[in-house]
Amino acid sequence: MHHIDVHLEHDIYAANNTIAEHNAQHLAAYGIRAFDLLGAIGSGKTALIERLTPLIREKKLRPAAIAGDVYGDDDYKRITALGIPAVNVNTGKECHLDAHLVEHAIESLPLDGIDILLIENVGNMVCPTDFKLGAVKRIVVISSTEGDDVVNKHPMMFRGADIGVINKVDLAPLVGADLSRMERDIQRYHPGLPVFRTNMKTGEGLGPLLEEILKER
Amino acid sequence: MHHIDVHLEHDIYAANNTIAEHNAQHLAAYGIRAFDLLGAIGSGKTALIERLTPLIREKKLRPAAIAGDVYGDDDYKRITALGIPAVNVNTGKECHLDAHLVEHAIESLPLDGIDILLIENVGNMVCPTDFKLGAVKRIVVISSTEGDDVVNKHPMMFRGADIGVINKVDLAPLVGADLSRMERDIQRYHPGLPVFRTNMKTGEGLGPLLEEILKER
Repeated sequence: MHHIDVHLEHDIYAANNTIAEHNAQHLAAYGIRAFDLLGAIGSGKTALIERLTPLIREKKLRPAAIAGDVYGDDDYKRITALGIPAVNVNTGKECHLDAHLVEHAIESLPLDGIDILLIENVGNMVCPTDFKLGAVKRIVVISSTEGDDVVNKHPMMFRGADIGVINKVDLAPLVGADLSRMERDIQRYHPGLPVFRTNMKTGEGLGPLLEEILKER
Repeated sequence: MHHIDVHLEHDIYAANNTIAEHNAQHLAAYGIRAFDLLGAIGSGKTALIERLTPLIREKKLRPAAIAGDVYGDDDYKRITALGIPAVNVNTGKECHLDAHLVEHAIESLPLDGIDILLIENVGNMVCPTDFKLGAVKRIVVISSTEGDDVVNKHPMMFRGADIGVINKVDLAPLVGADLSRMERDIQRYHPGLPVFRTNMKTGEGLGPLLEEILKER
């Protein structure tokens, strides 16, 4: 009788981390800084790319994007309309991007013409947390319409974040969401995390957010 | 050299289906009808339980609920406040309930005093699709604030659904969401699926939805 020890979860993460590290080095060699944008469906990740693109250009930096979705090209179409290099990545059934998918996406991009790479992860508040992509920072976008208990339901998402964004602040009164509670919950799970309130429809809060995104660590 | 064929995905689904079938038989023996409520974070799954509970009671039926979340008891607290039997299930890191978790949750419920069991799955539009729980119907709740491309991004979710709910219809104009597009996309992926527009804040649309939920197949 044969006994086989299977440590699949560990092996999958280790393999992913190795590729993520490779991605990070590959991008750094081209002077590209990549950012992993995380958050639920409809939180405002694509809108963030739409809003940041002109602000990044104002700083004489050249943006590009990877659009991650289970299926379809709705986000990809919105991003290409901005006139920036973009790649659409459909995961099929997977609920998150992984380093290998990003590695291939990077191959399709004109790396010599990019300074900032915005990677929009699959809309999901759970699965992407364990899969690093090779980004220099992780930005978690939540919105008031998800309910002011959304942070408390997903502490892991914030523990691994570098920046927090609370979007759709204008709708908070309409859905009865307490933005202060969301901020308190974030600070409880990740003390000191920079958090910004935004309204992607008007552009409110986007300037200070970009400053934080571009700040060297 | 040894070659080992690993068919993990298949085995996991097969094992889950076996337990789901067991759950279905167990619940049927008590005359309980269970419903699997799926949808993203903040779509309105807990609000649906809050709204349906008094309507179910009006029909002289006795509701109960299972609250599935990665972490925390925010939803569970809201459900117990309704005065119905409830169980909180924290999945830890998993992005969906599975039949085994539900099997254990059922053990904690007073089955002799329950007619309708509402199972709130983890807020996620991807992972729960492949894991049956033993419910008689699956109800997928989306909201206008998730964007009117949410259906097109998650066809699998609707292919496996028995009822669709489009919530937060009052916010559609504020977020620029085209409810008709959402309905068209649903019909494209699942022709004939009954779909209801709701506003959980006011109760709009809940009566007809409950009729459809309770309709025998």
